[in-house]
Amino acid sequence: MQVTFSAAVAGASGYAGGEMLRLLLAHPDAVVGAVTAHGNAGQRLGTQHAHLVPLADRVLEPTSVESLAGHDVVVLALPHGASGELTAALEAAGSEALVLDLGADHRLTDAAAWEAFYGSAHAGAWPYGMPELILTGGTTRQRDVLRGARQIAVPGCNVTAVTLALQPGVAAGVVDPGDVVAVLAVGYSGAGKAAKPHLLAAEGLGSLAPYAVGGTHRHIPEIEQNLRAAGAGQVRLSFTPVLAPVARGILATVTAPLAPGADAGSVRAAWAQAYDGEPFVHLLPEGSWPTTAMVTGANTALVQVAVDERAGRVVAVCAIDNLVKGTAGAAVQSMNLALGLPETAGLSTVGVAP
Amino acid sequence: MQVTFSAAVAGASGYAGGEMLRLLLAHPDAVVGAVTAHGNAGQRLGTQHAHLVPLADRVLEPTSVESLAGHDVVVLALPHGASGELTAALEAAGSEALVLDLGADHRLTDAAAWEAFYGSAHAGAWPYGMPELILTGGTTRQRDVLRGARQIAVPGCNVTAVTLALQPGVAAGVVDPGDVVAVLAVGYSGAGKAAKPHLLAAEGLGSLAPYAVGGTHRHIPEIEQNLRAAGAGQVRLSFTPVLAPVARGILATVTAPLAPGADAGSVRAAWAQAYDGEPFVHLLPEGSWPTTAMVTGANTALVQVAVDERAGRVVAVCAIDNLVKGTAGAAVQSMNLALGLPETAGLSTVGVAP
Amino acid sequence: MQVTFSAAVAGASGYAGGEMLRLLLAHPDAVVGAVTAHGNAGQRLGTQHAHLVPLADRVLEPTSVESLAGHDVVVLALPHGASGELTAALEAAGSEALVLDLGADHRLTDAAAWEAFYGSAHAGAWPYGMPELILTGGTTRQRDVLRGARQIAVPGCNVTAVTLALQPGVAAGVVDPGDVVAVLAVGYSGAGKAAKPHLLAAEGLGSLAPYAVGGTHRHIPEIEQNLRAAGAGQVRLSFTPVLAPVARGILATVTAPLAPGADAGSVRAAWAQAYDGEPFVHLLPEGSWPTTAMVTGANTALVQVAVDERAGRVVAVCAIDNLVKGTAGAAVQSMNLALGLPETAGLSTVGVAP
Amino acid sequence: MQVTFSAAVAGASGYAGGEMLRLLLAHPDAVVGAVTAHGNAGQRLGTQHAHLVPLADRVLEPTSVESLAGHDVVVLALPHGASGELTAALEAAGSEALVLDLGADHRLTDAAAWEAFYGSAHAGAWPYGMPELILTGGTTRQRDVLRGARQIAVPGCNVTAVTLALQPGVAAGVVDPGDVVAVLAVGYSGAGKAAKPHLLAAEGLGSLAPYAVGGTHRHIPEIEQNLRAAGAGQVRLSFTPVLAPVARGILATVTAPLAPGADAGSVRAAWAQAYDGEPFVHLLPEGSWPTTAMVTGANTALVQVAVDERAGRVVAVCAIDNLVKGTAGAAVQSMNLALGLPETAGLSTVGVAP
Repeated sequence: MQVTFSAAVAGASGYAGGEMLRLLLAHPDAVVGAVTAHGNAGQRLGTQHAHLVPLADRVLEPTSVESLAGHDVVVLALPHGASGELTAALEAAGSEALVLDLGADHRLTDAAAWEAFYGSAHAGAWPYGMPELILTGGTTRQRDVLRGARQIAVPGCNVTAVTLALQPGVAAGVVDPGDVVAVLAVGYSGAGKAAKPHLLAAEGLGSLAPYAVGGTHRHIPEIEQNLRAAGAGQVRLSFTPVLAPVARGILATVTAPLAPGADAGSVRAAWAQAYDGEPFVHLLPEGSWPTTAMVTGANTALVQVAVDERAGRVVAVCAIDNLVKGTAGAAVQSMNLALGLPETAGLSTVGVAP
Repeated sequence: MQVTFSAAVAGASGYAGGEMLRLLLAHPDAVVGAVTAHGNAGQRLGTQHAHLVPLADRVLEPTSVESLAGHDVVVLALPHGASGELTAALEAAGSEALVLDLGADHRLTDAAAWEAFYGSAHAGAWPYGMPELILTGGTTRQRDVLRGARQIAVPGCNVTAVTLALQPGVAAGVVDPGDVVAVLAVGYSGAGKAAKPHLLAAEGLGSLAPYAVGGTHRHIPEIEQNLRAAGAGQVRLSFTPVLAPVARGILATVTAPLAPGADAGSVRAAWAQAYDGEPFVHLLPEGSWPTTAMVTGANTALVQVAVDERAGRVVAVCAIDNLVKGTAGAAVQSMNLALGLPETAGLSTVGVAP
Repeated sequence: MQVTFSAAVAGASGYAGGEMLRLLLAHPDAVVGAVTAHGNAGQRLGTQHAHLVPLADRVLEPTSVESLAGHDVVVLALPHGASGELTAALEAAGSEALVLDLGADHRLTDAAAWEAFYGSAHAGAWPYGMPELILTGGTTRQRDVLRGARQIAVPGCNVTAVTLALQPGVAAGVVDPGDVVAVLAVGYSGAGKAAKPHLLAAEGLGSLAPYAVGGTHRHIPEIEQNLRAAGAGQVRLSFTPVLAPVARGILATVTAPLAPGADAGSVRAAWAQAYDGEPFVHLLPEGSWPTTAMVTGANTALVQVAVDERAGRVVAVCAIDNLVKGTAGAAVQSMNLALGLPETAGLSTVGVAP
Repeated sequence: MQVTFSAAVAGASGYAGGEMLRLLLAHPDAVVGAVTAHGNAGQRLGTQHAHLVPLADRVLEPTSVESLAGHDVVVLALPHGASGELTAALEAAGSEALVLDLGADHRLTDAAAWEAFYGSAHAGAWPYGMPELILTGGTTRQRDVLRGARQIAVPGCNVTAVTLALQPGVAAGVVDPGDVVAVLAVGYSGAGKAAKPHLLAAEGLGSLAPYAVGGTHRHIPEIEQNLRAAGAGQVRLSFTPVLAPVARGILATVTAPLAPGADAGSVRAAWAQAYDGEPFVHLLPEGSWPTTAMVTGANTALVQVAVDERAGRVVAVCAIDNLVKGTAGAAVQSMNLALGLPETAGLSTVGVAP
């Protein structure tokens, strides 16, 4: 590893791939290597991502071992199911690249949960790319696991928002993870770039639209896994996403019963302690509530928590940019740890607002 | 009462007042009487509501007993606290008008709840303007109370969305009202027309912003009152609204524990039975979920429900237009009942979509 | 023709077809007949248009002579090129229906202009469905042509906005039509329901995007035809549409040189006279400017005009709802004339705002 | 001047001030000095700008000579009319700071034009902060004037979009500046943070709203001044801005008559040559058109041009972020020149899209 490293992005024409390139351009040590695609191979990158001005004249290469081998880092922004085979082929070809998978294939450790929600064979788990995840007991974080990792499974965007909102209370035992309810207002870029009628601007503008209601969303077992990592015994989670007319952003409202003996003071202390010193997760001052505009384009998660005595519930809110802290920013942060760079290298905490 | 009736609107320059006028213009039996305002008195109505083309050249009169007396119906779209005194003055002046209060003053029956959430003296309850509200036992509805009423308290917009979402389960005993969680994505017109910095377009566009988190919203006791009316014993409610960049619309996601012995079949049956034959509340076919675009401008509430076995919760969703079914449409519907007109007179179920 | 008439809509699953059904539901004399589609035949209409509550359980029939014959009115909301053959087949089958074509096929009288902009053979012109169009000399309007018509070509949405903005000045000779510049901010529903990547909500939200720049838009010859009808000699038109993140609405800014001898007074007089008494086109009071929110869902065109002495140009602005006054409302208005009904039957001037 | 410099921002609680701070945080050589305000002095900066995470706990000081003196750079984001007196006071106090005025006070060289459009006494012109402005003859640019400047008047946002769109044609003589028509779709942040009813989200969402129509906008004389600088003789400009529901962004559509003898080739050559090598202004490949999403948060101006032979006009389009290239980015770019730093220091060309 030299001072600079080269990073290739497979699946560069989608939103996650494009965001990865945006962040790599801002990374002081990164050189953008191959940018590859499947159906769009041969196009100027600017045709897909005109906002990536310095890369606009790059040509998308076909996604293949040939195009991706020879880089220090390979980022996979591919449809679910594609990363396992490609990674194996890269290894067979002698690649020693750090592989970051932005897809879901390697996030879950429990094969049964994978099969129940994804309906396919489990491809095995990789180190999980959420540095702030509290590990049981609360004395270590997932970032310790990520140092020196060679394969990283980047978390789901909704998962990150819900986990960061609630894990302090779980780890500190001040909430009961046995009856968590999470409702998320989410932007359209999270649905990807495939043209589907219900994702049209004419449909989305002026509308609020729930989907995957009733416990079917694939991010559910991943959230449960995280809350168990943070110390929960049994987790039960009601999870509902609602599409709202923003391009980016997730605003997660997460409630759980106040644990016996806990109160507003112990709740606030749990959250404050959990995120004290974290570079990218911030508990706002009491009385201030996060909005997604505050974190647009930034790797910041803004969190707030309150105790609703009347309802007997803690309400935690987390705002992230689904493409940054929810995807590509988490990848860069984890990559930095894996490469031995400062965790914050190339990442901004400053949102583009208003 | 003749075939036609005259209706005056006090507080006509705000959003609720404007919407009331929009609906009255479409009512086959209504004649728009005085339109009054406080600060904007003397202006052309078109200055405030250019979309009300047939009324654009009307002049806003000062809100007073003089301007309002002599009408068959008086609609009060005033700040909280103003309706009691004005109504008394109208009565003193001999007015026999049906008074519809779009504000909160007369919604709550429990003076203690009023004082806890509003911080002022309780003005007393009026008949509550939600015709579909199930009354204990489930054999009668609130519409029976409204026939012939002379004073009507029109419900809060968020209250309507949450109540219509969940009440079938409460009435049928298939959900446990003791741990309800409601998260609402809401549009900006619900916040009114007063110019406050956080309501600016530059702030709202591209943002998702929670407010009144942690059990402080004034609609909470009103929802609890309704669920008790529908048969709940103790109600506990966690309620969080999230502002989303739409002008109109409320998408309420409401969950409650599945009651012992209930299942997907009994849940669906409860919702289907509750809204069978209702002109303005519709349970969508299984698998379809409501969006707010579907009900924009209409007096329709679209409802869907699912059982999340894994989470042990029922998830009910309701979409309404906050200014129509959430405010002015509910007023017209209740007014029709009070006046002995067909309940649906002048009200459309057809949304302006996309 | 009885008191009621039946109207079938072919191509009912698109936005124009859906809007036609929305307006027919509000028409006092219309009975909705067959609703037909091509690819979506067999579906519940509610799957495509959940907002059309009273029709949600209708099933889409295949578009064919069989499904459409036997109605008094047939509305064609089909791709360009499809209406000619279907109309001929209906006539061959003995149908005497009034046919309203929402597509472009029969709008242009000049075959060369058609071929230059559409690249196919001209299908011949039908009576043009813009009742307010001023005919040369200014003493008659297009509505006279429409009375009793059996085939009507409904205008293009952008065409309506530009024509209504500028025609008073052309007819009165106070502007020079030889150097017209029109720039339109337009909503996404005008682009139709076909899922294309650049029409995705993630692309449109937060963005302003021009298209068809440089004189290529197919609405150009239609606008020129209208301005010539209103009295222009040679017309030259620069026309640029810009997609903006609204579902509905066209805001046309149209400028033309002030004619020699004309001034602010003669300009205002021309516009005032042109629209005096028009039920659906309104000149706002001086100093007020139209917005698209004011006309959402309504058949209203709001117009304003100013003279910019410094630039030597007249600036006229027109706001319409592209799906109503720009498409389905114009169809209903023209249909009313053709059927001998009051021109305003079933049409509202009141927008759904805010 | 050391390697690092300190920069104070007066008027830091507004949008322009906030954006200036966002860019200064990303500047490798800048240290953020005092952040000052008038009415909001004493507040945490995070109360106004929660997105500026690293500065959130700074306290807004009162705007005064005391708070501002002692910095290397002072940025004035103040209401029109306030900069002259404050600058004089700073000088009187011995400050040698580079002063960047984000307001209009010192942009115009022509006192009569100032007085006609602003209605107050002219405060005198400062070096104009548009580095890419072509100076007559086309051999020099405004950047040469800015090197070493001590006072800089930062251009108006709309002015920048129109100037960058059209100046290549003016300088090369391929367009006629005597009949320019510019229509701009603009976002709400350009209107500032003062809470006015027509700027509410409920009003702006779903709406397109023109303002300052008919030649009254204060940016008109500034555009004319720039086009004259670029070589125009007499300039005539029709200028209309249309508010669209985006927080940021200006999409300027600018047309001018094709000059005699010019054609598509000479037009393209003029634009290509004008922006060849410019770091922040890019001519897109033929057939691609800029959108504002492409430049959100970036200091990039994307330009495209076409010749409309039929209309006899050149159509040029420019997309910028009004707060970056339109305001704070232009200030940083000019500051870099004045301080002898690389012109691109701290500025990104990469937009946050989608």
